[in-house]
Amino acid sequence: MTITEANPVLSFLPAPLGGRLINAVQQADPAEYAHLPALELSDRSYADLELLATGAYSPLTGFVGEADYLSIIERLRLADGTPWSLPITLPVTAEQAAHLRGTVQLTRQGQAVGLLDISEQFAARKSLEAREVYRTEDAAHPGVAALYAQGDINLAGPVTLFEVPRGDFPSYHRTPAEVRGVIEARGWKTTVAFQTRNPIHRAHEYLHKVALELVDGLLLHPLVGTTKGDDVPAATRMEAYEVLLHHYYPQTRTLLSAYPAAMRYAGPREAIVHALSRRNYGATHFIVGRDHAGVGSYYGSYDAQEIFEHFTAEELGIRILKFEHTFYCQTCQQLVSPRTCPHDSSQHLILSGTKVREKLRAGESLPPEFSRPEVAQVLRRAYSQ
Amino acid sequence: MTITEANPVLSFLPAPLGGRLINAVQQADPAEYAHLPALELSDRSYADLELLATGAYSPLTGFVGEADYLSIIERLRLADGTPWSLPITLPVTAEQAAHLRGTVQLTRQGQAVGLLDISEQFAARKSLEAREVYRTEDAAHPGVAALYAQGDINLAGPVTLFEVPRGDFPSYHRTPAEVRGVIEARGWKTTVAFQTRNPIHRAHEYLHKVALELVDGLLLHPLVGTTKGDDVPAATRMEAYEVLLHHYYPQTRTLLSAYPAAMRYAGPREAIVHALSRRNYGATHFIVGRDHAGVGSYYGSYDAQEIFEHFTAEELGIRILKFEHTFYCQTCQQLVSPRTCPHDSSQHLILSGTKVREKLRAGESLPPEFSRPEVAQVLRRAYSQ
Repeated sequence: MTITEANPVLSFLPAPLGGRLINAVQQADPAEYAHLPALELSDRSYADLELLATGAYSPLTGFVGEADYLSIIERLRLADGTPWSLPITLPVTAEQAAHLRGTVQLTRQGQAVGLLDISEQFAARKSLEAREVYRTEDAAHPGVAALYAQGDINLAGPVTLFEVPRGDFPSYHRTPAEVRGVIEARGWKTTVAFQTRNPIHRAHEYLHKVALELVDGLLLHPLVGTTKGDDVPAATRMEAYEVLLHHYYPQTRTLLSAYPAAMRYAGPREAIVHALSRRNYGATHFIVGRDHAGVGSYYGSYDAQEIFEHFTAEELGIRILKFEHTFYCQTCQQLVSPRTCPHDSSQHLILSGTKVREKLRAGESLPPEFSRPEVAQVLRRAYSQ
Repeated sequence: MTITEANPVLSFLPAPLGGRLINAVQQADPAEYAHLPALELSDRSYADLELLATGAYSPLTGFVGEADYLSIIERLRLADGTPWSLPITLPVTAEQAAHLRGTVQLTRQGQAVGLLDISEQFAARKSLEAREVYRTEDAAHPGVAALYAQGDINLAGPVTLFEVPRGDFPSYHRTPAEVRGVIEARGWKTTVAFQTRNPIHRAHEYLHKVALELVDGLLLHPLVGTTKGDDVPAATRMEAYEVLLHHYYPQTRTLLSAYPAAMRYAGPREAIVHALSRRNYGATHFIVGRDHAGVGSYYGSYDAQEIFEHFTAEELGIRILKFEHTFYCQTCQQLVSPRTCPHDSSQHLILSGTKVREKLRAGESLPPEFSRPEVAQVLRRAYSQ
């Protein structure tokens, strides 16, 4: 189980966190490992396996051990001091743990997809993890609920992935090395990444366009892993991105690519991993709006922006573009934010997510100042089915 | 003639170039100096005296000597290596030079406004200066024409200014120390400065708003010194800025202030001094669009952006925001640039300066996508007089 280096990092791309892009993808015949103890992966753990093995989580080479686990939780850093904010753990029940030693095969529906060299087993501190990572012990929080539901023991150790899964969007599913390759080929000296799990309305397009006036390329990087049941389905979102990019974005400056992670809804903590992993994908800039990766009212609107102040610019290695809430202003006749518009809210077109879903369910159209007509049509069709 | 330091530089403001803000303004009774030889200043030299004495040209303490003169011309740096791109000279005729030694009074309409301690007299290299600074020896270039028309000898030495002239716009005429005071009081951690000698249309407003989404404050810093005869008069421009800011900009994030320099039309070379002097005024960012400070077709559209590559970020101490040409797109229904819009020019509303002047002279209105109605009205009124 060797960790091989990817292509040497190209001069104008940012170095991955830790200096090299982890690559633990190794083709193998699963039958060879059939004699090993097996562990069936959850959707989230399978996504983590992919992110670890493809280097999206560089410098992590596998699920974290106890020293890193506690260091991440308590000081937002790996034990060696590198910034990292979410414990990437592989939880199992105590019963499972008792049967797992040495190298185990990691399976999906019984088929081996990779390996774990167990270096350590340790007890999860669920209450500490909930309080520190999610800032709440409320089981109504979807991340906390998942944490409480999982097994009590974490397995740690380096991983191998036999094959990069290409998911539901194979033509958009690219590893960090592949995204870096596209960025290099297009010659983008600077690339801004945008994390989203929602359809893109004009307010988001505005952020992209503001950034693109100053940065060479946009990596539109929607999260396609597990989300809450009420989020818009990934297939609809991808179709909406496609029509939006096709009609309104310069093709040579935009790259739509799938980000396979599952949502944890850890707000500020998740924003850090979202940014650091985009650095590993080759981005130099990362957009953090209000309420990034949040859910409900567990986090302050600016918490996910302010948390980056724990780190120096050099430590992060990716510049955070912090944006305000944006919307259309009737007097300005353009997209604005409280940073750029002096007019009061009577001039502002603001629709909540709930209101948008209501309109779509009722078959109503969304105003063109809110949503591009082509995007609104994709959403209306999805909601009318 | 002592150089005193201004208030200690505040922590979140950028240090002036050279580390301290030059302040050579000293109240004095002009009568005291009536016995000294006198030199009447041109508009440009008076503007330079003010910029030198108030610290806008820090670290320069006076008109440059021969070593700096040649170093600036040949390597874009002062003799000590500090970035500087325009020779700030005080030219006189050989006849004048013969009568000027030691300390001389600098006069405007015969009244002493300051002093010069002559440290050196040296011959101007007009042909070299034209070729290197203006990149042309064509006397049709207004900067070259001024150079050829001036005396052959440059006087050098530290200056004193008796009183900061407040010009035609006293309420907007602020020294670098005063602008720094406003920035500090408003708590802008980042300030973007915008140089202009033209009315602001929506294309410029767009650049400001893009910058303001990411930077705390905007220093709108129109040049009010001597310009070419066909540029829009400063009074009209100031009125247009006032109505624009009043109606469309957040008051707490915008500062309109006069920049007293004369235009040299030296394009890329002038862009550097425009940026460095704005750092001295307390700005952290400076906007450089296409054809900055250019005239005719003497410079390539991107020359004034590319010339900054001669310096490191640390040397400059101010971040350059490089923008493309911007305009309204009918399909995007917003202001865009080739960086952000995929549509062809049939969708773009572009009016040349000549076309705008034609429309205004004919009493026609400017389209609202091109110019805010309130600004268009100020211009139309000015042109109808």
